[in-house]
Amino acid sequence: MFKKLVLPATLLAAFGTAHGDEGQWQPHQLPQLKSELKRIGIQIPAERIADLTKHPMSAIVSLGGCSASFVSPDGLVVTNHHCAYGSIQRNATAEKNYIVDGFLAKTRAEELPGGPNALVYVTEKVENVSDRVLKGLDNVGGKARHEAIQGRIKALIAECETDKSYRCSVPAFHRGLEYYRIRQMMIRDVRLVYAPADMVGNYGGDIDNYEWPRHTGDYSFLRAYVGKDGRPADPSPDNVPYKSKDFLVVSAEGLKAGDPILLAGYPGRTSRYKLPAEIRFARNVSYPAMVAEYQADLDTIAAATKNSKNDEVRYASVAKSINNRMKKTQGLLDGFARKDIAAIKDVQDADFRGWYQKYSSTLQPNLSQAMLAELDAAIAADMALEQQTFAWNLATNSDLFKGARTLYRLALERRKPDAQRESGYQDRDLAMIQARLARLEQSYVGSVDQARFTAGLQRYAKLPAAFHPQGLDALLPAVGDVPALYQKSTLGDTKTRLALIDADAAALEKSDDPFMQLAVKMHAFALALEERTKESEGNLEKVIPQYMSAVIAWKKSQGKPVYPDANSTLRVTYGTVDAYSPKDGITKGPFTTVEGIVEKHTGKDPFNAPKALLDAVKAKRYGQFRDPVLGTVPVNFLSSADTTGGNSGSAIVNKRGELVGLNFDSTYESITKDWYFDTAITRAIHLDVRYMLWVMKEVDGADNLLKEMTIRYPKK
Amino acid sequence: MFKKLVLPATLLAAFGTAHGDEGQWQPHQLPQLKSELKRIGIQIPAERIADLTKHPMSAIVSLGGCSASFVSPDGLVVTNHHCAYGSIQRNATAEKNYIVDGFLAKTRAEELPGGPNALVYVTEKVENVSDRVLKGLDNVGGKARHEAIQGRIKALIAECETDKSYRCSVPAFHRGLEYYRIRQMMIRDVRLVYAPADMVGNYGGDIDNYEWPRHTGDYSFLRAYVGKDGRPADPSPDNVPYKSKDFLVVSAEGLKAGDPILLAGYPGRTSRYKLPAEIRFARNVSYPAMVAEYQADLDTIAAATKNSKNDEVRYASVAKSINNRMKKTQGLLDGFARKDIAAIKDVQDADFRGWYQKYSSTLQPNLSQAMLAELDAAIAADMALEQQTFAWNLATNSDLFKGARTLYRLALERRKPDAQRESGYQDRDLAMIQARLARLEQSYVGSVDQARFTAGLQRYAKLPAAFHPQGLDALLPAVGDVPALYQKSTLGDTKTRLALIDADAAALEKSDDPFMQLAVKMHAFALALEERTKESEGNLEKVIPQYMSAVIAWKKSQGKPVYPDANSTLRVTYGTVDAYSPKDGITKGPFTTVEGIVEKHTGKDPFNAPKALLDAVKAKRYGQFRDPVLGTVPVNFLSSADTTGGNSGSAIVNKRGELVGLNFDSTYESITKDWYFDTAITRAIHLDVRYMLWVMKEVDGADNLLKEMTIRYPKK
Repeated sequence: MFKKLVLPATLLAAFGTAHGDEGQWQPHQLPQLKSELKRIGIQIPAERIADLTKHPMSAIVSLGGCSASFVSPDGLVVTNHHCAYGSIQRNATAEKNYIVDGFLAKTRAEELPGGPNALVYVTEKVENVSDRVLKGLDNVGGKARHEAIQGRIKALIAECETDKSYRCSVPAFHRGLEYYRIRQMMIRDVRLVYAPADMVGNYGGDIDNYEWPRHTGDYSFLRAYVGKDGRPADPSPDNVPYKSKDFLVVSAEGLKAGDPILLAGYPGRTSRYKLPAEIRFARNVSYPAMVAEYQADLDTIAAATKNSKNDEVRYASVAKSINNRMKKTQGLLDGFARKDIAAIKDVQDADFRGWYQKYSSTLQPNLSQAMLAELDAAIAADMALEQQTFAWNLATNSDLFKGARTLYRLALERRKPDAQRESGYQDRDLAMIQARLARLEQSYVGSVDQARFTAGLQRYAKLPAAFHPQGLDALLPAVGDVPALYQKSTLGDTKTRLALIDADAAALEKSDDPFMQLAVKMHAFALALEERTKESEGNLEKVIPQYMSAVIAWKKSQGKPVYPDANSTLRVTYGTVDAYSPKDGITKGPFTTVEGIVEKHTGKDPFNAPKALLDAVKAKRYGQFRDPVLGTVPVNFLSSADTTGGNSGSAIVNKRGELVGLNFDSTYESITKDWYFDTAITRAIHLDVRYMLWVMKEVDGADNLLKEMTIRYPKK
Repeated sequence: MFKKLVLPATLLAAFGTAHGDEGQWQPHQLPQLKSELKRIGIQIPAERIADLTKHPMSAIVSLGGCSASFVSPDGLVVTNHHCAYGSIQRNATAEKNYIVDGFLAKTRAEELPGGPNALVYVTEKVENVSDRVLKGLDNVGGKARHEAIQGRIKALIAECETDKSYRCSVPAFHRGLEYYRIRQMMIRDVRLVYAPADMVGNYGGDIDNYEWPRHTGDYSFLRAYVGKDGRPADPSPDNVPYKSKDFLVVSAEGLKAGDPILLAGYPGRTSRYKLPAEIRFARNVSYPAMVAEYQADLDTIAAATKNSKNDEVRYASVAKSINNRMKKTQGLLDGFARKDIAAIKDVQDADFRGWYQKYSSTLQPNLSQAMLAELDAAIAADMALEQQTFAWNLATNSDLFKGARTLYRLALERRKPDAQRESGYQDRDLAMIQARLARLEQSYVGSVDQARFTAGLQRYAKLPAAFHPQGLDALLPAVGDVPALYQKSTLGDTKTRLALIDADAAALEKSDDPFMQLAVKMHAFALALEERTKESEGNLEKVIPQYMSAVIAWKKSQGKPVYPDANSTLRVTYGTVDAYSPKDGITKGPFTTVEGIVEKHTGKDPFNAPKALLDAVKAKRYGQFRDPVLGTVPVNFLSSADTTGGNSGSAIVNKRGELVGLNFDSTYESITKDWYFDTAITRAIHLDVRYMLWVMKEVDGADNLLKEMTIRYPKK
């Protein structure tokens, strides 16, 4: 394996100088930041925060894609409204519209099943397994390296997932320099306890998404249930609330501008260590193409659903998700236009390369001067391949086709022993595949899928010939033949689709379903593209860890610790409650207030606040949640903490570790933070728990939950 | 005449409680506000500010429509760039484009003639002439009252204007409760000294008009010249700089948030004492109609000029002016929508009426209970008439027709002795009429005027029949006949037009110019409408002063002094440098900085800052103008002072009376202040003199002027 570098003593400098608030730290790194945490005013010892088995970190959980935390000893979990949305939706009916009206279980018996996707993951163990993943691979690149790593990871996972109460993963850190095995207890009976009305939890809707000023009460409560033996169990009325070892005390005392905060959660993905060439490719090539593609797809969906309210509803969440990705990608492009991040990175890269030339031979182990050339070549090759993958995705934009491919691939993989199957098609993945194929029912209409597939093929045809992957054109159906495919296919029927999960490959190869025939016909091509991707990834996986190793040594020489890019694992970030200036002469934040809800209220979605809430504001019924500085109840606030997607629902704790907020978004100007953290303008948007408690008390009467939580009220 | 009310002693209370910063005070009222001025930190005694013959008020001048001030003992005047625009424009050529590049006279010999509209008015005397205007008219209303008042005012003016060095006026205060005669020395040789480049003086252009954040260097310098005898004289190379008795010292020390300011100038027109019914009429009827009309006229102009760059340029300033009025009117409507000012006024009105019912009989002289009914009736009648006038204006939207009407009316009036002529057509007005008729040349194109006239007639035809003034329809030309009018008329020719200024009415009645024939034919109708207007105004002029008198007594009973609505006379307002919150979660101001210019710079008009300026910012060459708090040079700032149109160019002085800024605009949210001063959001936008001095020093090299002014630099 490739060992961590040891620096010559002369280059070593003390850590702990001011770094802004950048950093999504692995908990075990926090002791390195001790003096910084102390400086901003955090009173919990850094060593304590580093310990996942102790308060407050043992109260932090993942929902898979979202973050959350325990707030009572009886498994009560608080997260974002948008993270619990699926559970609310599946319980809603025309009569009991829990989305519109909200839902409150006054007793435990009234708590509702959260559904198969409602899962609570409690991180129990994190081990550094870099040795086991990388041993003997120093000089191996390409597909061989990629497959060796994947094989070892699968073995590490298999060894760890002793029963279905546990999920294990082995994500790469520092772009493949390190691997950690993470073992999480997975609680699979999770129930919906309380959700405010949509016009509290989703106030402002898509219009306010990524925007400030913000007035969203983005919170909901779930409860984790386990078997009577205290271990995760399938959903059952016999299950009992999980006795969470730890939970967060809630502080109604609140924060003021300048106060320190800690934020713990599961950030998804950042690209902070990308090279200038990678940024330029995203900025000039891939992101503009993606935005155009999102827009074209949205236009197609809009045109295809415009005459049917039913079709429109079915594609609402698809459109919302594309819209969200488009806004984020466009935000990145706007940010790149506003600030030349590539140029900033150029300077850093030149600094680094200068340092590397001088010191690479002094590092242990030695790194060759050729490493940088190998790095640049591997990145260039990967970018070229990415354009082909983009074209492939464009040409195959059909849910039915994707379904057929999944089924055929699954059948092929099932021929192998489980451990040798492609990741994603192992026995452990079956439930997920089944759920995905079943869920399609909710967001599929044949005529719309046909329109999307057709439009995608037409856009593919217009791409420059050089971008068409070799051999693909001959395999694709003619646009004129597409209607017949949809006419004959039965894969749109959920039962038919699900019945094929157990079919063997030979049977599928004889299928007369035109989409299955297409999947079989295109399989060899798809596999070849996948092989090329693995080859490219293996090459990157060889050289990028060497590069990152040198970068870490370089940063260390400046006295700066290095956090790895986000990878959906547990991280801690810190910051202060802080306003920002989006442009000269304007200041935004740090707080909004309930009066702002009234100000935005139009009576029409998404600005249609509940009457009871408006009445409480009008009567200035602030209760114990009135902020002494603002003179009213705060709703949302900004902090300088370092977050990204996946941090939704992350607990924000004050200097004593008490829950004071929930993370749920960041400002539009911050979107580029996934590439470059600009201390001056990067701000995360949080729910102030005082607003949550106020709505619970004054609007929704959720006294049972207020009583269950441990709430510290301000001294009178 | 109607005497000021004397209050019963029990109702008298001390003045001087906090009033926000509302108030455009007549200088003689300032001693009433002594404690308030002291409270905010003004060090100049109130009595001193009240004296127009003493510093600093004797340095404040009017340009007629704009405000300005002397800044050297040699008649150097500083005002807004947009106030000196006409003088810059008339000196600009294709080779010497002073608009684009700016202009700087390095010596007095290089100073350029400002043109006939460049005038400096120095207010010398203000006398209360209410007695002479109103004597014996207590019970006279209607046209008789209106004409009596106009006759007395003309006499008062004639008696005052002893020679052409003086202009006198007798404006009404408190909606006709008081009249003051104002005598101003009019300096008519005014030269252009220095104007920065358009992309300093008009940076942001129409896009930033009424907006914050703002980065406009809206300043220019003029110089007043007089004859060798020190008295105003016609422009001549023999004239010498006017030895201004007083001038303002310029402070480069600057202001910070919270600092007090005084602002002195000539605000044009406000409507603070209008009744709820008047506000509702504006909000529901007249303003929406005006906005629609402005937009329709702009659309017509745009369509009619779209194929000719030359035509477009000719109508640029017309369109700009309509646009500006439309933005202001729309801003008022937006403001009315945001805040129900009518409802606020309802409450005040009900309070007042309650008080009035109780106390009117105790006032001296007694006011009848019937006064309020008479008031409401007079206002209702006036609003009905206003709709007819609106329709009339719609039907006669032709510059040629207006020109013909002016000429014919002038000929008719000239038959009378000067003193009996209608105001606006006296000998003293001849020069203005001539200038207006001549100036049309710059902004007239036959085909465009024809399009506007035609479109106006068509819009008139679409109005509800009830709005058509009786008898008008029969007099108007058919739309189909309009082209012939323009084909035959010669009034578009400036020489022809000007030659008719001396024509007698009989000759004009025989004219074969179709527009002159139309003017003659419609004269009786127009006169009748004018008479009805006079009747209505006379009725208002009878009852509104009684109402205002009662309002003043009522306010006095609450210890509040009352300032009169703005009427283009010299006023003083005060306030503090202050940010504001346009909506929850956002703060605007109070300062912008030179870095913001770079931020907005696109390289395209109106965001195309001069390279020298950008370079100076980039090099952080802030010199002595760096603000210690901001760390850079401030550009514009906000204050809570009470301003309106006409206040452009007003001097802003610090607590010691030193020039620290120039007023030039107000924020969009403030537009409704003309009706209701909302302390929380009303902010005026000022140029920080430090930016002006910095541009003079670092960009334009105007060292001669920096040397001429007395500048107080901050202590090191």
